[in-house]
Formats: sequence, structure tokens, C-alpha cells
Amino acid sequence: MSENGTRRVGPASVKQQKWWGWGAEGIEFSFADKPKFAPFVMDVIGVDVTKPAPRVAALSTYDIPASQLTDGLRAALVEGIGEENVVDDDEYRVIHAFGRGVRDLVRVRRGEFGRLPDVVVYPGSEDDVATIVAAATAADAVVIPYGGGSNIVGALEAVPTETRQVISINMGRMNKVLDIDEASGLARIEAGVLGPDMEIQLNAKGWTLGHFPDSFMWSTLGGWIATRSSGMQSDKYGDIADITRGLRMVMDGQVLVLRPLPSSSSGPSVREMVLGSEGRLGIITEATVNVHRLPPVREIQAYFFPTYDAGLEAMTELAASDAAPSITRIMDAAETAFSMANGKKSSRVSHLMNRAVQEVMTRKGWDLEKIALGFIGYEGTPVHVRYEKGLVGKIISRNGGMSVGKGPGALYDQKKYDIPYIRDFLLDRGIPADVSETATPWRLLKTMHDKTVAAAYKAMEEAGVQGFVMCHLSHSYHSGACQYFTFAINDSTEHNMESYDRVKRAIQQSFMDNGGTVSHHHGVGEEHSPWLDQDISPAGVFIQRKLFEGVDPDQRFNPGKIIHEGLPGISSNSVQPG
Amino acid sequence: MSENGTRRVGPASVKQQKWWGWGAEGIEFSFADKPKFAPFVMDVIGVDVTKPAPRVAALSTYDIPASQLTDGLRAALVEGIGEENVVDDDEYRVIHAFGRGVRDLVRVRRGEFGRLPDVVVYPGSEDDVATIVAAATAADAVVIPYGGGSNIVGALEAVPTETRQVISINMGRMNKVLDIDEASGLARIEAGVLGPDMEIQLNAKGWTLGHFPDSFMWSTLGGWIATRSSGMQSDKYGDIADITRGLRMVMDGQVLVLRPLPSSSSGPSVREMVLGSEGRLGIITEATVNVHRLPPVREIQAYFFPTYDAGLEAMTELAASDAAPSITRIMDAAETAFSMANGKKSSRVSHLMNRAVQEVMTRKGWDLEKIALGFIGYEGTPVHVRYEKGLVGKIISRNGGMSVGKGPGALYDQKKYDIPYIRDFLLDRGIPADVSETATPWRLLKTMHDKTVAAAYKAMEEAGVQGFVMCHLSHSYHSGACQYFTFAINDSTEHNMESYDRVKRAIQQSFMDNGGTVSHHHGVGEEHSPWLDQDISPAGVFIQRKLFEGVDPDQRFNPGKIIHEGLPGISSNSVQPG
Repeated sequence: MSENGTRRVGPASVKQQKWWGWGAEGIEFSFADKPKFAPFVMDVIGVDVTKPAPRVAALSTYDIPASQLTDGLRAALVEGIGEENVVDDDEYRVIHAFGRGVRDLVRVRRGEFGRLPDVVVYPGSEDDVATIVAAATAADAVVIPYGGGSNIVGALEAVPTETRQVISINMGRMNKVLDIDEASGLARIEAGVLGPDMEIQLNAKGWTLGHFPDSFMWSTLGGWIATRSSGMQSDKYGDIADITRGLRMVMDGQVLVLRPLPSSSSGPSVREMVLGSEGRLGIITEATVNVHRLPPVREIQAYFFPTYDAGLEAMTELAASDAAPSITRIMDAAETAFSMANGKKSSRVSHLMNRAVQEVMTRKGWDLEKIALGFIGYEGTPVHVRYEKGLVGKIISRNGGMSVGKGPGALYDQKKYDIPYIRDFLLDRGIPADVSETATPWRLLKTMHDKTVAAAYKAMEEAGVQGFVMCHLSHSYHSGACQYFTFAINDSTEHNMESYDRVKRAIQQSFMDNGGTVSHHHGVGEEHSPWLDQDISPAGVFIQRKLFEGVDPDQRFNPGKIIHEGLPGISSNSVQPG
Repeated sequence: MSENGTRRVGPASVKQQKWWGWGAEGIEFSFADKPKFAPFVMDVIGVDVTKPAPRVAALSTYDIPASQLTDGLRAALVEGIGEENVVDDDEYRVIHAFGRGVRDLVRVRRGEFGRLPDVVVYPGSEDDVATIVAAATAADAVVIPYGGGSNIVGALEAVPTETRQVISINMGRMNKVLDIDEASGLARIEAGVLGPDMEIQLNAKGWTLGHFPDSFMWSTLGGWIATRSSGMQSDKYGDIADITRGLRMVMDGQVLVLRPLPSSSSGPSVREMVLGSEGRLGIITEATVNVHRLPPVREIQAYFFPTYDAGLEAMTELAASDAAPSITRIMDAAETAFSMANGKKSSRVSHLMNRAVQEVMTRKGWDLEKIALGFIGYEGTPVHVRYEKGLVGKIISRNGGMSVGKGPGALYDQKKYDIPYIRDFLLDRGIPADVSETATPWRLLKTMHDKTVAAAYKAMEEAGVQGFVMCHLSHSYHSGACQYFTFAINDSTEHNMESYDRVKRAIQQSFMDNGGTVSHHHGVGEEHSPWLDQDISPAGVFIQRKLFEGVDPDQRFNPGKIIHEGLPGISSNSVQPG
């Protein structure tokens, strides 16, 4: 029994998030050893988070729409993949109905379940997946692939008006590293493996994928590919689009097999059509991906800049230089302040801002309210790391930055997956918080930052709510970088999703107005779809639409995501462009 | 008047290749100062190239099918883009009917013109292109984009049975670098610019694209994008697929506009669908591409390895190391021998093999018949080049290689665009020669090389012709590299294309059987289409087909390329899988 009283079912080997929040039961954010956290939240959002939060009700108290699974489809699935792998327990249907975006959590906690899947299935092999798809086709059902469940763009839920049966395919049993080609640095890996389980298998043989998105603990290889994910060390290892060389995907009556190739000229890239397809073209079962030997040295160095703009200048110069660090990350003044407030009492981040460092900054004439903390990562042999640090150090100095050692970087490295737990902690206390990220050429980065922050605050003002926005640069490329915005609002009312929408919409529209993409690595799903024609132009949407219509004329594979094929109601729960 | 007596027409600013061969009139390969060349060819192919070659007949002596251009379409084109930009002169129609593959040259010289375009048009702007496409749609005509004309996979010719009017769109007037975003390292460039004209414009402002395919002199930005080109410095600058960030493409009634973005998660990549589309989705008019400051130092270092296999081992180790050179290129023993034979009397390549070097090699126990010459390129600040050379040098030594200085590399750099002229020289003398390239993971490189060479020689034996095959590795990636095969056969008979097909087919089939792609950077066109389902699987071909059918239901845009939509006759001139 879970703490909410629901019967545990489903294959025991498959890890499962809470139905009401991020991560496994029992793990929660605590500010007990972070004395500055509660005062900071009170200051910027106006909520006293030291008060106890209301408890989420047991799922058994909710009115859960019954499964519409027919006996015929159930029989076909049970015969095909075994009874233990076919689950229509309410808790599992609810868990698989959503990703873990803030809107998802608000809705599920309110019992706004939308169109729940009728059954959750757990294939153990590509053949199982093909069996499921064949059964779905025979029964005219819809299939939605499910990895770790961490999606935050609404890509895991069925169209609200869906009248056909809905099958959620949990890929969690397909979790093995099948083979490592050591000469080529390629690993063949099943799509359903969660980040940590994959790295354990790779590390055991001395290898790493080098792909560490913020969702790492609760996201899968297949999910990364389906959403064009990017990890925090993408500067060195590339986005998942670069990392993924070979692919297998189950389609209706056929299996796509793309062999691992370092590069190719074989027409429009089918590989790059599967990347970012969010389940619309088929079910990804396996990928062959670039893997690397664990580096002898891995170091994250912290730097302070007088301002975020100085940090942006440094990163722009870095991208054009001979240096090639593994991580580039600069926080704006707001995120720097948050980072300080989130430090443990005795932590090295706190020590950073001890009197000595403050005095140095003050002597330099820095405004302590405007300072920006940055992290640069280095990997390789000791000689290489030293060489790279030398190249980077000169550029940082030229742009007015100063090194403050390895301590804060090591701490960042430990805490990097904590943010979703903080998000849930805040939501429990009436503070919806979310993230939105975009990429732009270097020239537009500052404008994008300033206009987006301004747009978010303007939206909060219009909504009449107090709130907070912060941003960091991460994922540098030759021609530009990603900026990652996090925002939180003080609104615990029933209508707080309207306030949230207003802010989210303002941010997305700013991305479009200032030369950015709808998303750098979260995907389109349902949430960002309304802006897609502003990003890739109506002709780009036309091309994607024709691809989906042609490959999946019956709209069996995760319909309504990325592009709405005139499906009614798909956007009823989400934001629209202003 | 040209030397062949045809009237010169068309916009004077647009450079034009010979109708019967590679490059501009007046430039030809000569072995006058290369004493080893003729003996080498006699030895490996059995042809005395010192005998004068028969002269190609004047085009006026050929029977050229008349243009089927209707008065209506002509009037619409003339009104839309001006009379001087609408050309249906026979020579121009012949020039635009083919690329410059060996099969193209054999056919055109024999007067096997296939389905000549009915008119060649020269748009000066994106609006002009839209006007042409609208006129084509109104007249139910077909449009085929034409860049530098260097295509070698049959992508520029109309389907032989095409009954509609055929318009070849020469993009040569759209040849300007429009803008350089210096902060972002991005340049907005018109698609029709030839390599040298583009680099002149970029260099003048201190920038370079860093994209130098073998076809550089006679290929365009739009052509590179349409075929997924790769340049010899791709190790540093990336393939054109990496370099291309923003795009504009004229489609039927709409213009695709993809803004320059360093990376994005906006569904299946439309950018990567246009890349490699070979004219099937629309006419690319402009791209925004990564550009780099001209490096302070650029050096190509030559190395000798005891064998090609030792060179492959070194490159495999290099790819997994911290080193990041700009060029990696290793020639097998055959190509090394050819390279020596192609050296000038007094050149540094010849000096390489002077007695002193030979003595060192012999002392090392090397078999001089098996040695492999390699080039590694370095770019950056002097400090960076020194650092990289140090890293690479250790790896080369560990794998038994030895450095022989900068001389041969500098020479390679000067001669790198000569190969097509040698190809024409040989063809003039009854020796059809061609190239075929593939990419594979590192683990498969040696097998791919050995089996492909063996398959080619077996095919020559079966065809009863003497011939020669050589290969080099180029374009290294994390997980593998490209291998580029060049072959030549002694067959001046009327049926020499049958011998050629046998060899070409054997090579392509070996690519498929040994884990390679149909092409690393030449494209699919008409030539490689028969193998596409073995490369990307039938489901991959299905996906591409649905894309083309959906976006261009009338098959107006370069039909029959990449995938044959059941069009009769499209393959009549080309190879089929064995």
C-alpha cells in the first residue's frame, strides 16, 4: 500500500513517481538546514513557507473516471505481453495521465483528470511493443509512449475529447544497456532506461553517456530522443540529437531501423524526424548512442561576474575561442541571489560570500545586488583540464570576472536535480512555479533576457500577483546559447492557473518576439504548440503536419501533440498566444 | 562564341561549366611536370595516357531535342523575371541537363541527352523564385534547382519520361553574403553563391565558413545544403548540416522561414528535412550559417604510417582523445602511391620519398609498398596549434606513425580541387573514373575498406576490365569516419558504362553489407536511390516518401530524386542493387 492507500500493482522493477508530485514517495525538499531560504521566499514572493502545508488528499477520495478498456483489447494485450504487464488500476492510470509540469500537478490534485488512459502496458521487448501496436490498431485505440513521466509540456496526456481507447505504454521494463562497441564509442541501449540506471550500467564498464538533463532522475533515453533533450554538459557531449546515432522505432505494421552512423547523406534525415517526434511517428524502442570513457578529471569551477551582462559577454567570447569546456552556466542576479539563499548553513556557497570575498568585490566597485555566479566545467586528462582552464581564465578576466574555486561547483553538481522538489514544496504552499527555456544567437541574448524578465513581471502585475523570475544561461554553441527562465507566483486561489497562464504566455511570446525558439530542450507537446508557427513559420508547421498525416493517417500515435490536427478541445487546458 | 561554336547567352555574371566536362573552359589537367604520372597509369590501368586524346565534337554537330517551352509559360517567366533571365538556348539546356558525374559526361558526349530542361531561368531574388514557382504551378511544369552543377548522383536531371515542361532554376545570380552577425558568428548568405565567391566576400571581412568540399570551386551554398555536403575541415567546422542554422525555402504558394537558432526542440527538425532534400521540398534561397574568424594559424602536417590499418588505429584513438584537429585524412597504400605519382618533379612530396626518408622507413622494417600518407590539420592561435600538435603527435607515435613536416600538407592544400580535372583527363583517354564514399563506426572501418576494395576488383575481373581502386579516410567524428573510394577502369568501349555500373554497384552494395551509409556527403539523387531501403530501412523510405507526397502532392519539385514515386524509367540509366 502506498501512503495514499492505493494498491501497488504493475511490474515491480519499474520505478514510479508519486501521482501527485515529482519523484518517489518519501523524498521531499526541506529548508531545515537552509536558514536563508524562507526569508528569501517571503521577501520575493510574500509567502511564509515555514507554515505547514495542507496535505494532498488520498487518491481513494477522488472520483476517478472508469477505464473504457474493452474485454477484447484487454484479452489481446494479456495474450500478447502477459497479464502482469497489463494494468488498469486507478492509481496507475492517474500516474500515466500526465507529465510532471506544474499545470499537471495542479490538475491532478484537483481531480481534473482529463482523458485518463484506459490501460497501462509494460512491454519487455520490441516484439512486445509491436504486439501492443498491432492490438491497438485492431481495436482502433490510441497509443501514448511513457518514459520516466517527467514531461512538462503536456505530451503524455490524451486529447480530452478522445473517444477511442487510450493505451499508455510504459517503457520501464526495457531498461538495459545491450552492448558497448568500445572501438567506436557507441552503446546500444533500450529506450525505457532511466538516467541513473543507464549511467550505473555504463559506468560499471568505464563509460558515460554524458547526458545529464535536470530531469535525469526521472527521464529515459527514449524520452530524451522524443523531446530533443539536452543535458547540462551538452557543450562537450552534444544535445541528444548529436548523441543519438542509431534508432529503432515500432510503427504501424513496420519497424524503423536506422543503423548507427557517424554522419550520412541519405536524403532528409529520418533520424532527425524521429528526434523530437514526441510519440507521433511511433514508439522508440532502442537507440545506439555516442558514449565516452569516464574522464580522468572532472571539475566545475565557479566564477563571479560584476553583472549577468558581463557573464554573457564572457560566454560570447568563449564560444568564439579555442577553448572547449564541458559546462557553461551563468546565473543572472536574481538566480544568483536564489542560489545563495538555497545554500546550506555551513556550505561553501555561503562561505563564498563571506566578508573577504565581499570586500574584494566592493573594492572592485561591484554592486553586490547585481553580481552573477557562473560555473564552467572541464573534463579530460589533468593536462587538458589545466590547459582549458588557462584559456577560459584569461577570457573570464578580460570580461571582469573572478574565479572563486571549485567548492561551489562541486555543490552545484550535487544539488543539480533538486529543483523539481523545491517546485513541489512551493506548490504545496500556494506558489505555482515553472520553467521555460529558449535558445537564441549570442547577439540577441541580452535583449531576450531583459525583455522576457520584464514581460513576466508585467504579466504578474496585470494578474495582480506577486512573483519572481530568474534566469541562467546554459548550453553554449558556436552561434548562441540557451537561457532558462524559472518563475514563481504567489497565487493559491482556484484561478491560479489563469495567473500562471498569463505569465507563461508572456514568456513564450517574448521568446518569439526576440528571436528565440519555442523550446531549447523541453519540447512542444501541447503547451508550446500554439507558438510553433511563429517559431518555424506556417510553412514549417505545414511540413510537420504533412509528415504526421502521411505516416500516421489514423492519428493512432499520440495525436494532438506538437501540431493539433483540428482536434477539438486539445488546447482547452493550456495557454494560447497573446 | 565558345570553343565549340555555341552562342553565349544567359546572365554574364553567372559562371558556367563546360557542357562536356568539369570546370571552366581552358582549365585542364596536365602531367607535363609530373614524370611519374603516365607510368603509374600504365602500370595500374594499362593505358598510355601520353597519346593525344580524341577531341570532343562541337555541340552544334549533335541532334538536340527541341525545347517544349510553351509561349504561355515563356511569357509568364519573361514578365516575371525579365527576358535576359529566361534562356532556352541549346547549349544552356544541355549544360543544365546533368551534373558532372562520369555517367553524366559519358552520356552528354554521346548525345544521350535524356529529358533536357525546356528552359533555364536565372532568378535574382527570392521573389523571382516565388514568381517562377507560381508560373510553373500555373503551367503544371516541373522545377529543378541548379547550383554549381557539380552534382554526381544524378540529382539535376529530369525524369526521362517527363511529359510536363521542365524548368531548370540556375541560382547563380543570388550570390551575395547579405549580412554578418559578428557577435554570433552567423552570416546570412544567398543560396546561389559558389564556394570561392562566398569565401572572397567572407574573407574580406575576416571571416570564413570553413566548408571546403572537393567540389568547392563549382558548388553552391544551396547545393551543399540540398545534398548534406561535408567539407574537408568538417572535423572542426562540422558538416553543412551543423553549419546551417537558419533557412529560407520557396515552396508552392508559401515560403519556409527558419530563423537562425543554435539548437531547438520544436518537433521533428524541419531544418534537417530541408537538408538533403535535393530540391524535392522547394527551392532554397538563403541560409544563415555559422562563420568563424579566420584563424591566426592554419597548418597541415603530414605523417607516414607503416600501413593504412595503423593509420586507422591512430585516427580511432585520436577521436576518443582530448585532441580536436581540423582535418584528419589518411590514404591507403594505393592512394598514397597515386599521390606520389601525382607529385611534381621538384615537389616536396617527391622529396618526401627521398633516400633518407626511405632509409628511415626501411630501418623501421616498413614495407614501402604498404605505407600510408596522412594529413592532420590544425587551426587556432599559435599556442593552441602547438598544444594540439603535441596531443596528436603522441597518438601518432604510439601507433607507429612518423611526422614528415608541413611541406606535403601545403601541397595537398593547393592541389585539393584538382581531382575532377584528372577524372576528365582520364575519361578523354578511355578511362572512366568515379568516386563513392560512405561513413561507418570506427569498429567497421577496416572491414569496410578491405571488403569494398575486394568487391571492386572482383567486379572489374567479372567485367573483364583492368582497373584501380584507392581510398582515404576523411571526416572523423566521435563514433566513426568517412572513407572515400576512387576507382578507374580501362574501358573505352561503347559499353563501358556497363563495366562502370558493375563496379559502382559492387561498391555501393559493399557499403550496405558492411554497415555504411549510401553516401556520406554526395547525396542520394538518382544513383543511390536503389540502395536507400538497405540504408535507412523500408520504414525510413516510407517516412521520406510520405513527407514528399504530403508536401509536394503534384510532384512539381525535382521529382524522382531520392525516392522514385513509381515513376517509370527513372532508373533506366543507372545502377541497381545486385
